Amino acid sequence: MMKLLESMIQEKGTIKEGNIVKVDSFLNHQIDIELLNECGKEFKKRFADCKVTKILTLEASGIAIACIAAQYFKTPVVFAKKSEASNLSENVYESRVISYTKAKEYNIKVDKDYIKSSDKVLIIDDFLAQGEAVAGLLSIIKQAEANLVGIGIIIEKGFQQGGKKIREKGLRLESLAIIDSIEDGIIQFRK
Amino acid sequence: MMKLLESMIQEKGTIKEGNIVKVDSFLNHQIDIELLNECGKEFKKRFADCKVTKILTLEASGIAIACIAAQYFKTPVVFAKKSEASNLSENVYESRVISYTKAKEYNIKVDKDYIKSSDKVLIIDDFLAQGEAVAGLLSIIKQAEANLVGIGIIIEKGFQQGGKKIREKGLRLESLAIIDSIEDGIIQFRK
Repeated sequence: MMKLLESMIQEKGTIKEGNIVKVDSFLNHQIDIELLNECGKEFKKRFADCKVTKILTLEASGIAIACIAAQYFKTPVVFAKKSEASNLSENVYESRVISYTKAKEYNIKVDKDYIKSSDKVLIIDDFLAQGEAVAGLLSIIKQAEANLVGIGIIIEKGFQQGGKKIREKGLRLESLAIIDSIEDGIIQFRK
Repeated sequence: MMKLLESMIQEKGTIKEGNIVKVDSFLNHQIDIELLNECGKEFKKRFADCKVTKILTLEASGIAIACIAAQYFKTPVVFAKKSEASNLSENVYESRVISYTKAKEYNIKVDKDYIKSSDKVLIIDDFLAQGEAVAGLLSIIKQAEANLVGIGIIIEKGFQQGGKKIREKGLRLESLAIIDSIEDGIIQFRK
């Protein structure tokens, strides 16, 4: 796992009620661009054997790491758009996503022009918890009949089920830091 | 103005009903990272004399260019979060923004910890039309008693009022491409 990232989480993350770790100060409100660059390089290293043609993420907070990482892969980024309306547009792939943290459902949409069956797609996102967002993106890749290269995540909440479900499907998942537990303010990372 | 950007808009932009130019294929759905890097370098060149300490943008589509540009300024990015709820949280600066394109109002919020009165803030966004988003970000900078360095925009719609209003206030606005008119499918850029 990435030592720099784990140190940042330890030092700058704040633990809120319900053992929620907030990384707003460097990851998803204020963004430390140097850290993102290190994460981007690490993703490139881990997926070095894959010929990625496109990076797919979800607005809003996935956009930052997807764009920084894309510089190392030399590929475009496509970000799925969120929309609470469930009306179907014409030229889009759509998937329904449940957000447990926000307690609501929304649609995610990708224009059919931007994911083709010839694409080798790497999904990148900042967080993985229940895995609902990734499941939505996987559905879009499937609808496009494109190839999934793998999934790169900055912080996986190892005590939730998303990572487990993805690995059980035999998909390639690279999480740069996996939090296994948060107890009494102490964060344990997976070794 | 940036020739590369103008060429991209001419070649890859599509003109929709009501003379709306869509740049979804390289700017705000699929993202051409090389183009963003050129835009980032150009912003750095134009604001080279300013000691920027923070780049401020608005989710979602401003995040990409803000993060890429921040690499040249070597500063963190802060992105204001959108929320349709108008309930006041405690430790945030807030501003109400009207979106004409989406025909709705929403609040934008920035945690008080991430913009300080000592900050020299550069606002960066992908689009400028009526200037409502920029006005909201300016209000947040004012509430924080921080210093505004200027505003960097990728595409300004010169036939709408946002740019004019900002320049009339004496604020420094750098738009990398200004579309003065779209008529019968022909895009005219300001010289």
